[in-house]
Amino acid sequence: MTLRVAVLGAGGRMGGETCRAVEADDELELVARIGRKDSLEQLVDAMAEVVVEFTTPDAVKDNVSFCLGNRMHVVVGTTGLTTEALDELRARSDEHGANCFVAPNFAIGAVLMMRFAAQASAHFDVAEIIERHNEHKLDAPSGTALRTAKLMNDARAKAWVAPTAGRETLEHVRGGDQGGIRVHSLRTPGSVAHQEVILASAGQTLSIRHDSIDRSSFMPGVVLAIKKVSSLDGLTVGLEHLLDF
Amino acid sequence: MTLRVAVLGAGGRMGGETCRAVEADDELELVARIGRKDSLEQLVDAMAEVVVEFTTPDAVKDNVSFCLGNRMHVVVGTTGLTTEALDELRARSDEHGANCFVAPNFAIGAVLMMRFAAQASAHFDVAEIIERHNEHKLDAPSGTALRTAKLMNDARAKAWVAPTAGRETLEHVRGGDQGGIRVHSLRTPGSVAHQEVILASAGQTLSIRHDSIDRSSFMPGVVLAIKKVSSLDGLTVGLEHLLDF
Amino acid sequence: MTLRVAVLGAGGRMGGETCRAVEADDELELVARIGRKDSLEQLVDAMAEVVVEFTTPDAVKDNVSFCLGNRMHVVVGTTGLTTEALDELRARSDEHGANCFVAPNFAIGAVLMMRFAAQASAHFDVAEIIERHNEHKLDAPSGTALRTAKLMNDARAKAWVAPTAGRETLEHVRGGDQGGIRVHSLRTPGSVAHQEVILASAGQTLSIRHDSIDRSSFMPGVVLAIKKVSSLDGLTVGLEHLLDF
Amino acid sequence: MTLRVAVLGAGGRMGGETCRAVEADDELELVARIGRKDSLEQLVDAMAEVVVEFTTPDAVKDNVSFCLGNRMHVVVGTTGLTTEALDELRARSDEHGANCFVAPNFAIGAVLMMRFAAQASAHFDVAEIIERHNEHKLDAPSGTALRTAKLMNDARAKAWVAPTAGRETLEHVRGGDQGGIRVHSLRTPGSVAHQEVILASAGQTLSIRHDSIDRSSFMPGVVLAIKKVSSLDGLTVGLEHLLDF
Repeated sequence: MTLRVAVLGAGGRMGGETCRAVEADDELELVARIGRKDSLEQLVDAMAEVVVEFTTPDAVKDNVSFCLGNRMHVVVGTTGLTTEALDELRARSDEHGANCFVAPNFAIGAVLMMRFAAQASAHFDVAEIIERHNEHKLDAPSGTALRTAKLMNDARAKAWVAPTAGRETLEHVRGGDQGGIRVHSLRTPGSVAHQEVILASAGQTLSIRHDSIDRSSFMPGVVLAIKKVSSLDGLTVGLEHLLDF
Repeated sequence: MTLRVAVLGAGGRMGGETCRAVEADDELELVARIGRKDSLEQLVDAMAEVVVEFTTPDAVKDNVSFCLGNRMHVVVGTTGLTTEALDELRARSDEHGANCFVAPNFAIGAVLMMRFAAQASAHFDVAEIIERHNEHKLDAPSGTALRTAKLMNDARAKAWVAPTAGRETLEHVRGGDQGGIRVHSLRTPGSVAHQEVILASAGQTLSIRHDSIDRSSFMPGVVLAIKKVSSLDGLTVGLEHLLDF
Repeated sequence: MTLRVAVLGAGGRMGGETCRAVEADDELELVARIGRKDSLEQLVDAMAEVVVEFTTPDAVKDNVSFCLGNRMHVVVGTTGLTTEALDELRARSDEHGANCFVAPNFAIGAVLMMRFAAQASAHFDVAEIIERHNEHKLDAPSGTALRTAKLMNDARAKAWVAPTAGRETLEHVRGGDQGGIRVHSLRTPGSVAHQEVILASAGQTLSIRHDSIDRSSFMPGVVLAIKKVSSLDGLTVGLEHLLDF
Repeated sequence: MTLRVAVLGAGGRMGGETCRAVEADDELELVARIGRKDSLEQLVDAMAEVVVEFTTPDAVKDNVSFCLGNRMHVVVGTTGLTTEALDELRARSDEHGANCFVAPNFAIGAVLMMRFAAQASAHFDVAEIIERHNEHKLDAPSGTALRTAKLMNDARAKAWVAPTAGRETLEHVRGGDQGGIRVHSLRTPGSVAHQEVILASAGQTLSIRHDSIDRSSFMPGVVLAIKKVSSLDGLTVGLEHLLDF
């Protein structure tokens, strides 16, 4: 038997991509594509078991609330839910016995990169992160680089080993310092979203790299969430909770 | 309080490297360096708690047996122990209440690479392995590449996705096929021991790479084993059992 | 003063991209966008100095012939011109004093990679090529990989050094053999078009890598050809002839 | 007929490596190994045609002067020759009709990397350099990185394209700025000497990387210099002058 799936925000880029991914999966059945002008009641009529939410930061909270109130599980890809909104949704989820899964990043490879980098951190002396995005990205470093460094530092009980105190003959050439991990941001056309974590000890290096070239990279994570959301408990945040290690 | 460590085969390259690593660690104390002409009784006199064995395939079994019989834990880096020898050592370990740890590869980075590649295998469609060693290596692929592919295939329930049936206009260019994982061996001077595992799905790739440039890369694994052997149970084979995930 | 440029096939993907590139360049002026239904006479009316041809294999020869006959220089990106057609166009070019430039690949980076790999070949002992494309590519290896190997072998007077005769414990794992250069083809989703040439000697490796992620990569080559075609002599084939070394 | 070669400083590490390289080459004959206590007259007695100089900064000028005065060509690998010393040696070389070749770096791969990076600079919008050495290197960036950036900027007539003005949420994360080229220095155990130059434009990147793992990497450059020094003219500085492009 297949799982009945509806997509909210089906007219958008992520929503459209999700519709295609659902249709391509034998275990899933796409029962409703809801666009901006459609009524949420169609979700109920279509007897959706899981609703995927890819609309806008303004609409997401009310949409999710509606679904949970109608005992449909929800997978949320839209960003912008505040801590307070999450608390409300958790309560509503518990009240109605429908689960809600929220993820800031659905790229399984990125989540695995962070997880592996953290797990390896206790076993090496030095760590450096190189991230590379195209020239239009406004911030440096990327949010993923900062989060990776945080997870690595959390997983490591002691300080990283500092190299021999050296002289910088060109200012800033050693990059940014995030708790002892050096972070280097490259901004090059011809790139999309890339990150490499390098862990080093005497005689060896372990490098973990993720390259993302388009939004299709998010679909395996979305599909995984659709299949697992019914077996979760209330509200869950973060794709890492769906991966078995 | 420090742990009292002795090294068997202290005159050899791995043994000598081990002596240096033990001396450099604040939690360890080097109490005996035993060379080819020295008596094993010196281990007892030195009141060693852990003995590291880096001698020769001929001598290893008797050496380990002596240590266990004298209630000293043993860390074995020498290769050549047969399954029968391991069974004997297991029995002797249980009888005397001293533990024995054996590892074919002490490079923590290589063990982590294999572990992470296996863990990631369920989440991607396609896998390729590129290994690179210098031009004197006799076999292709490396043992590590074959073991990596085996662990990945064991961890993955279903078949890998095959690319569109294509035409090979140059024979063998797609490399070796190990259970659906393509393996590529490069043999280049200017290299030591390198391996990259590439896992790919639509829109993204995750690459895990280990580079080893000399035998110092084995020391963190040896030191970890020295510190953990007393808390193991009888005979343990494989560095992966000492790493917390 | 700007150069007056017209684009034939302006409704196609490469033609449209070319229109944008011409408009974005201060030294160039776009004077005509000719689509499938437009008359070639518009090129004359617009007083184009250079015409860029991105139509179809069927139409390309007649289009180019028309332009040369009207003393307009032509840059041809359409594939499918036979040797005979090229000979005819060369004669027509000489007759009317208008130049014709044809290139099978307008990605400057790919052309530079091939050039550098060939130049370096005399100075190293061993070469390996790794190319990586997505899973839909029909042939292996890529045409670029074969052409790279050919240029490298042409540039090298003597045979490459073979590694110690080894044992293949997994068939084909050493890849394809193109005149002593080992070629490895990877087919992974999440990739577009990538190639790395590795040149190795004792103690060192030189690696030259080209990554292409979309057709915008061809525009710098097209623009370069537009600017240089008037100073060429008759018919020229290959972007490498426009790059100064 | 073979070329008669002598090595000055044969007891040192580079000198010893050079002796082995000369003996391994069919076109060369090793006719004298001169150590610290040996007399320079032995060079004359041995009828050396080319002398390789790998001694110390203190001794190098007098040694070279002696050789040139005795009409022997010299290949100098010792560092520390001042501009004045070079001028003196140039005069002496011209006077006696013997050539002198001096190189700060004999790794052919490093020289090619710099050359190719400079040649490619006119054809891309953005450049970044990542260099990686072990944790004991005192300066950052490496001299090779600075020299590479200089050669690239010299070869490029116009300014590099700057990325969209962005916000650095972690200080220095964009690395050092050398004339518009961003330079990133990594200091990791498990590394020797590595550098990657990344050149980028819309849709594509060209990466040129050199990895050096030991001093054997200098020998092809030394042997090339030995074979070519007799056909040079007076004093020549820099391995790039011996490579045909």
